[in-house]
Amino acid sequence: MRTGLFITFEGPDGAGKTTQINRLTDYLASMGMDTVLTREPGGTQIGEKIRKIILDPHHKEMAHLTEALLYASSRAQHVAEKIRPALNAGKTVICDRFMDSSIAYQGYGRKLGERVRIINEIAVEGLVPDLTFLLLVDPDVGKKRISNGYLDRLELEAIHYHRDVYQGYLKLADLYPERILCIDGSRGVEEISSEIIDKTAAFLGKLKG
Amino acid sequence: MRTGLFITFEGPDGAGKTTQINRLTDYLASMGMDTVLTREPGGTQIGEKIRKIILDPHHKEMAHLTEALLYASSRAQHVAEKIRPALNAGKTVICDRFMDSSIAYQGYGRKLGERVRIINEIAVEGLVPDLTFLLLVDPDVGKKRISNGYLDRLELEAIHYHRDVYQGYLKLADLYPERILCIDGSRGVEEISSEIIDKTAAFLGKLKG
Repeated sequence: MRTGLFITFEGPDGAGKTTQINRLTDYLASMGMDTVLTREPGGTQIGEKIRKIILDPHHKEMAHLTEALLYASSRAQHVAEKIRPALNAGKTVICDRFMDSSIAYQGYGRKLGERVRIINEIAVEGLVPDLTFLLLVDPDVGKKRISNGYLDRLELEAIHYHRDVYQGYLKLADLYPERILCIDGSRGVEEISSEIIDKTAAFLGKLKG
Repeated sequence: MRTGLFITFEGPDGAGKTTQINRLTDYLASMGMDTVLTREPGGTQIGEKIRKIILDPHHKEMAHLTEALLYASSRAQHVAEKIRPALNAGKTVICDRFMDSSIAYQGYGRKLGERVRIINEIAVEGLVPDLTFLLLVDPDVGKKRISNGYLDRLELEAIHYHRDVYQGYLKLADLYPERILCIDGSRGVEEISSEIIDKTAAFLGKLKG
């Protein structure tokens, strides 16, 4: 029996997800909610090993389908070992990236289309987030924010790929307006944080209502 | 344009696949056919890394779906990087295990059912072997080696699992009789080898019309 709340954060890298995830986690803790914070790809020991294969810059020969299936493998383990047991124990799970990332990055970005949704629906065995915060910043701005240090294989991809990912996210938000809430990530940290906390509180209120 | 011939070998471990694969490869070479020999899981550098994760005995917590998706990831890379380019170059590819292994071991053995077929059809992008030799030996033969006839819970589980895999292979042979040829692996090496070579020669003869 699943009783916990499942919240995911999505959006291009450099949109400020980590800061906002930490702030929402603090807020939920202050409300006395037992919260588990996790991330993808990874989240489990097996998932971290899969993550290393995916992000290794030497793997230039990796086929797009291999990449999509590896993300789905890592996610299957994450759901089975960590997310679903926590939800079943009544905990709130906040996850940095989930299935929408694969649909945006591999489905739209890599042009694999519907196949990504199909393999991911199998991987997560029907688990859908209750609430997804999609932090949006112009893809050209996001790229500049992260280009200070080391870039992994995916970050090295051309900017038009990131634009396709961005458009993919917009399409997802259009398809699932009840679940995916678009957040303008170009504003200040405080303003964004207030909006996310307000929307979470409103969602919790509706659940209790 | 695919022009080469794609032959796979299937069956439980210990059925003598390796010996028969080497003999068929020698035969095809003697006929002047350019042959590529490969195996699953693995077959590529990325695939070998995935294989290490799958087979690591420490990964006791691995979910069955994770296992199935990792096999499919490795297969996607194998097809994209090695098998399809060889077939497109007109070479004959002989592969030790392919998609039927996943359907037998994960679909039937692990009870994941149709989901295994779906993710694998995506992984191989429609590639189907021309000819599959299914080497069969009775799964209960191994049981006789276990001392005193007493089986603990895990040993019993192992036997049930291997019987399910065996039955799965039989169902596959039933579904695809044109492609999957059942070979009685309980006979001598020479007898089995003659049958496989005769059937391959007959198939090649039919191709030439």
